Amino acid sequence: MIRLTYRIETAGPVEAMARKIASDQSTGTFVALPGETEELKARVAARVVAIRPLPPSDRASFPDEAGGASLFNRADVDIDFPMDAVGTDLSALMTIAIGGVFSIKGMTGIRIVDMKLPAEFAAAHPGPQFGVSGSFALTGVKDRPIIGTIVKPALGLRPHETAAMVGELIEAGVDFVKDDEKLMSPAYSPLKERVAAIMPRILDHEQKTGRKVMYAFGISHADPDEMMRNHDMVLAAGGNCAVVNINSVGFGGLAFLRKRSGLVLHAHRNGWDVLTRHAGIGFEFSVWQQFWRLLGVDQFQINGIRVKYWEPDESFVRSYRAVTAPLFSPADVALPVIGSGQWGGQAPDTIAATGGSTDLLYLCGGGIVSHPDGPGAGVKAVRQAWEAAVAGVPLTAYAEDHPELARSIEKFADGKAA
Amino acid sequence: MIRLTYRIETAGPVEAMARKIASDQSTGTFVALPGETEELKARVAARVVAIRPLPPSDRASFPDEAGGASLFNRADVDIDFPMDAVGTDLSALMTIAIGGVFSIKGMTGIRIVDMKLPAEFAAAHPGPQFGVSGSFALTGVKDRPIIGTIVKPALGLRPHETAAMVGELIEAGVDFVKDDEKLMSPAYSPLKERVAAIMPRILDHEQKTGRKVMYAFGISHADPDEMMRNHDMVLAAGGNCAVVNINSVGFGGLAFLRKRSGLVLHAHRNGWDVLTRHAGIGFEFSVWQQFWRLLGVDQFQINGIRVKYWEPDESFVRSYRAVTAPLFSPADVALPVIGSGQWGGQAPDTIAATGGSTDLLYLCGGGIVSHPDGPGAGVKAVRQAWEAAVAGVPLTAYAEDHPELARSIEKFADGKAA
Repeated sequence: MIRLTYRIETAGPVEAMARKIASDQSTGTFVALPGETEELKARVAARVVAIRPLPPSDRASFPDEAGGASLFNRADVDIDFPMDAVGTDLSALMTIAIGGVFSIKGMTGIRIVDMKLPAEFAAAHPGPQFGVSGSFALTGVKDRPIIGTIVKPALGLRPHETAAMVGELIEAGVDFVKDDEKLMSPAYSPLKERVAAIMPRILDHEQKTGRKVMYAFGISHADPDEMMRNHDMVLAAGGNCAVVNINSVGFGGLAFLRKRSGLVLHAHRNGWDVLTRHAGIGFEFSVWQQFWRLLGVDQFQINGIRVKYWEPDESFVRSYRAVTAPLFSPADVALPVIGSGQWGGQAPDTIAATGGSTDLLYLCGGGIVSHPDGPGAGVKAVRQAWEAAVAGVPLTAYAEDHPELARSIEKFADGKAA
Repeated sequence: MIRLTYRIETAGPVEAMARKIASDQSTGTFVALPGETEELKARVAARVVAIRPLPPSDRASFPDEAGGASLFNRADVDIDFPMDAVGTDLSALMTIAIGGVFSIKGMTGIRIVDMKLPAEFAAAHPGPQFGVSGSFALTGVKDRPIIGTIVKPALGLRPHETAAMVGELIEAGVDFVKDDEKLMSPAYSPLKERVAAIMPRILDHEQKTGRKVMYAFGISHADPDEMMRNHDMVLAAGGNCAVVNINSVGFGGLAFLRKRSGLVLHAHRNGWDVLTRHAGIGFEFSVWQQFWRLLGVDQFQINGIRVKYWEPDESFVRSYRAVTAPLFSPADVALPVIGSGQWGGQAPDTIAATGGSTDLLYLCGGGIVSHPDGPGAGVKAVRQAWEAAVAGVPLTAYAEDHPELARSIEKFADGKAA
């Protein structure tokens, strides 16, 4: 049995709307038909199993086409779908349990707030290949977050310019570097040339130090064959990670890639916000991320504390909990990637809000490269901030004998990095 | 140059927000960096080329996180992206020009309302393989809409039960039959068995009459390899069409399939409504459908007049215009599939609203199978309704010497089919 929870909003009774969802999304049809027998319904019909009323709203989320209503009833509705009707294919799950619900007339708001999948889904999908332990093993990081950064500016650098910047970041001591999600294989920086310019620096550094910086190359392409060619290019050159814009390649792109992948798959969720930003509409991240983790995401970008985007801290915290909670086993957890406007100053609040684990990738852009004493000092400052946060020492106190952190606080504490 | 038009809404000045989109979606970064030269900007920077103010709104579309504003400024903003920065890959286009815009802080609403692509995109993508002319050639229909229906109930019939119903529909004279979009390959009706049960009836009928009913099998699967196996099964059995749930397979799934496809690809857009139903958020269909047509959709479901869903007629009409307007050439037009609560009664208003073309697939579920004198009379009634509509004769007048239409009007004209 698959259980979905829908937060519904309607000018009419919530009970009737709940029944309509269950009917429309399984056997339902708009006029009674002779073939629709009870036996058939027993086999595949979805069933409303609980309705938990919520306070009504005085404002419709979607426009109220009928007009005239001043109050909209709300409830969380649990509906069970038989496995026989859906199976374990994620496109079937998305289409049957979710796809059509946003089109129902008279529904002024609907948000998918929970989804509980049975164990059959664990066996049917690969899940992460590397996940948390693989990410730490490959970077050689222990007992602290993986510290990462993004090559900036996002677009416009030629391969040799990117490589020069990557060289500087490697020297600075970062564990992880990534292409901006918008950088894939444009004419001025074809992936092939970028790989050829960057990987020798990664490998030289590994030769010298024994530590291999993880570089996530932008391999996304709408055509899975092209994306695989990009993947193979990175792997053949000794790379071990790729940025995948999951919304822009879709289930098909990620499923195809994961089956053949030798790279850590770092998911960027650009486009996701349109599905979640209006609280009366769309998806909770806790539901949506299940699809992508089953498909095989290793590292999942989820924003952070005091980000530069719209997302409030409490929403990030819920995402963190979702992505770090096992679906079926600890091996299916994706590494949380915390980023956007981060410089280390958010480490104490991040720990306080998430429970203290340092099993995470902490992505700082300007917070590292714009440190007044250069990227090397930027990396040190971020590490120091995490040391202080883990030890429960206030950053300002820790900064007294950690000059890089002190300089970082001087520059960023007023919010300039955000 | 690629031109996007964003309908933005913000408590602040629209000019600053327009510049922020252009910056964030190309070179932008949150602190000034030494590498960001003017030459680089000239190469890849997006540029605001026009701002057309709209009347302000007193209501934020997305929640106003900052709070306190009582008026939200609105404008249509044209932004140009250099081809060098994006290229022709559709995942790059989606990520760069669209992906991140929904996350911008202080933007209380953003909707992608137009997208103009240069000719490079025509050469880079396959577009429809069969499209309008292929759909008509394969069904043998001329000078009228292709009349189609959907096997109901949506879920629950076993293959032999589905095949029995298909047999009846074939005898009734339909041109096209499809699986409900929710039917793919569940345990009680594996696609293989459904194909084996249905195709002999299609082929027998072709042998006898020379006319081959087009049957669209639900082949969607999140894994493109599995979807291809489904495709191959249908093709090998003599089938010529497939339902693809485009949102549930993604760009990757459709791109992979189209490159290898021998079937007419009938797109069901379930899930789309969440991206368009709130007028201040998401996408206009005219933008979104361009991606899928370039990827290779042959037939596109777009609702119709007086549907059972939320979508108002004027929105359907805009979708119809979008899908029938060439992007680069008439060959890239997708066949509009008009459905939901249709029974023929909407034919006059459909013609009046869309300009009179009968190059369309008219999908009736209950409107055919629930005709009081059976599906055969149902098909005749729908054909008669279109004959009347094309001739400009009122349905009630035409029904005087067309008894099937008369009976259809008796049963459905009060809106029961909707």
